[in-house]
Amino acid sequence: MDIAQALTVAHEASASVRGTTSPNPPVGAVILDAQGDLAGVGATAPPGGPHAEVAALATAGTRAIGGTAVVTLEPCNHYGRTGPCSKALVDAGINRVFYANQDPFPQAAGGAEFLKARGVETHFLNTPIRALTPWLAATRLGRPHVTLKFAATVDGFAAASDGSSQWITGEQARSFVHSDRSKRDAIVVGTGTALADNPSLTARTADGLYAHQPRRVVIGSREIPETSNLATSGFERYSGISEALKALWDTGCRDILIEGGPTLAASALQLGVVDQIQAYIAPALLGTGKSIITWPQSTTMDDIHRFETTSVVTLGNDVLMELTRKDQ
Amino acid sequence: MDIAQALTVAHEASASVRGTTSPNPPVGAVILDAQGDLAGVGATAPPGGPHAEVAALATAGTRAIGGTAVVTLEPCNHYGRTGPCSKALVDAGINRVFYANQDPFPQAAGGAEFLKARGVETHFLNTPIRALTPWLAATRLGRPHVTLKFAATVDGFAAASDGSSQWITGEQARSFVHSDRSKRDAIVVGTGTALADNPSLTARTADGLYAHQPRRVVIGSREIPETSNLATSGFERYSGISEALKALWDTGCRDILIEGGPTLAASALQLGVVDQIQAYIAPALLGTGKSIITWPQSTTMDDIHRFETTSVVTLGNDVLMELTRKDQ
Ligand SMILES: NC(=O)c1ccc[n+]([C@@H]2O[C@H](COP(=O)([O-])OP(=O)(O)OC[C@H]3O[C@@H](n4cnc5c(N)ncnc54)[C@H](OP(=O)(O)O)[C@@H]3O)[C@@H](O)[C@H]2O)c1
Ligand SMILES: NC(=O)c1ccc[n+]([C@@H]2O[C@H](COP(=O)([O-])OP(=O)(O)OC[C@H]3O[C@@H](n4cnc5c(N)ncnc54)[C@H](OP(=O)(O)O)[C@@H]3O)[C@@H](O)[C@H]2O)c1
Repeated sequence: MDIAQALTVAHEASASVRGTTSPNPPVGAVILDAQGDLAGVGATAPPGGPHAEVAALATAGTRAIGGTAVVTLEPCNHYGRTGPCSKALVDAGINRVFYANQDPFPQAAGGAEFLKARGVETHFLNTPIRALTPWLAATRLGRPHVTLKFAATVDGFAAASDGSSQWITGEQARSFVHSDRSKRDAIVVGTGTALADNPSLTARTADGLYAHQPRRVVIGSREIPETSNLATSGFERYSGISEALKALWDTGCRDILIEGGPTLAASALQLGVVDQIQAYIAPALLGTGKSIITWPQSTTMDDIHRFETTSVVTLGNDVLMELTRKDQ
Repeated sequence: MDIAQALTVAHEASASVRGTTSPNPPVGAVILDAQGDLAGVGATAPPGGPHAEVAALATAGTRAIGGTAVVTLEPCNHYGRTGPCSKALVDAGINRVFYANQDPFPQAAGGAEFLKARGVETHFLNTPIRALTPWLAATRLGRPHVTLKFAATVDGFAAASDGSSQWITGEQARSFVHSDRSKRDAIVVGTGTALADNPSLTARTADGLYAHQPRRVVIGSREIPETSNLATSGFERYSGISEALKALWDTGCRDILIEGGPTLAASALQLGVVDQIQAYIAPALLGTGKSIITWPQSTTMDDIHRFETTSVVTLGNDVLMELTRKDQ
């Protein structure tokens, strides 16, 4: 197995634990033995459990001696709840380390230096790892990475004028949303959506619940009925977006999804905290209705707010466009 | 070359003449010799010129004897301006004919019967050919096939509130529009767009004009200034959509593109004559502005108008969603 193939496997391991590792990053690690054969794969365990490198080394055992580690993030170098991964790699007899991203976290960084100082051949690959994007951005920003999700008709409406919006998108898009929820730390809605749609905000499979459930968060002051789905499944409430972001960060959230509605979405955009937009676009027309967002209210083309399209996925009849802030 | 490969070549030949053949269909034909090697490729010439089969047979010459013809449309069987293609195939000594679509045109149909009666092995492949879709639909409907095109922000606006809309989409999307125009019989706008945007409605390459230019059509009663780009390049005017469709059909148009604006688009949708929608969606927000379309004014989700997504193309930062009427 070459380094590129090993990185693909490490990337998949990263992706497989998204949502379950915060405040730690969802890292994937691969150990190749001295012959270049796959000897171990690991991913970050939930907080308190072993990091990816340690998990991969445990599977590899003595096959790690003289081997190579391929990791999606620079091995950590600090004594947190677990020992430093850089030391574990040296102790296991690893000769070469390839890592895709640098650790932006001041306390943890220095892993590459530590490895080099101990004679380990160390390579920074500088390869984007999708599963790490939110965690890396959050660490840089000092607040959770925010994705704003909406479903809209191709003419830009998030609900009909009577408030009904079930269902604008089709089954494939909706089950994709559930799988996406299962990889987030928290799902956030405004009271307007909580009251209009009675959502449960759980991550559901065809016949049950995903193993990982995001925290359910409502922003606003209006009362949520005790009989509502949210009250039944349990939720947290915050009085505003900044309060929510601070409290969620402090309690370990790094990757959150704002699922609307238009008022909350507009506030989040106005605050400048929307890092990514997920637009699920359905091939349907309403002609009138509730706009997706009531911001920025540009009066002329010079004031248009542009994003970068970072991914386009076709989901049955619907399209998911993923937009990223231009300054990222 | 096998039949599937030959059909791909025939399909490309079809696509290469789209826009130049109306009222005839843009057909592509491939002749394989008795060994199955490529002996000739042809496509419909402009009206009065040879049909695809005749052009392909001319290249193949005597290599057609005992050979195979692969055609995107059932060979015609009538004496129009040119002799019937079915007879030309028999006369050239073709043994087998594969055709992707049946001829829906009563006068021309019967080609397959003619061939079978003369001992030619004849196969109907029943394969959709994108380049033929508009012509086939037009022939069935007895009016030009109508594609409604718009460019919009992801929040559904076709222009800012001051009327400016240049440019919502990026360069790649805009040059795709020009190439698309070069394959249409006519481009249609309302007087509102003609006056607001001063469009020329020509099909432009990076440094000039495409060889085929669509007819330029304006609908509405307001005067278009003599100094406008449209007046300079020349245009036709009609008082309404039905009048335009009838006149365009009678003068040979089969495939037309309505490029807006919102008022004309709403009328066309309301009339039920929109067969396809091309939505160019840009990763940008305006928050307010001119809606793409002011129809159907659904007040609840039960009245939503749904289409089928038949193609999704990424063009730089923009996405082109192609929607087709559900009853097609
Ligand atoms: N298609 C979609 O993707 C989608 C998604 C979600 C919802 N929807 C539709 O959207 C409609 C609901 O719209 P909506 O705009 O009323 O919903 P909303 O944004 O969920 O709720 C608005 C409420 O959230 C609170 N809020 C928002 N921003 C705030 C801020 N910055 N600080 C403090 N509180 C804030 C306020 O609550 P208080 O007034 O309680 O203080 C506000 O009234 C429904 O028809 C629903 O079906 C569609
Ligand atoms: N983003 C995009 O894709 C896009 C595309 C085109 C235009 N635009 C924008 O759209 C704006 C113009 O909007 P608009 O709605 O005024 O433009 P429009 O639809 O091009 O023009 C409206 C006019 O067309 C005529 N018309 C429309 N439907 C008719 C019907 N069924 N029968 C007879 N006449 C009919 C009427 O003309 P008379 O009043 O003269 O009789 C009507 O006033 C501009 O800001 C332009 O930049 C955007």
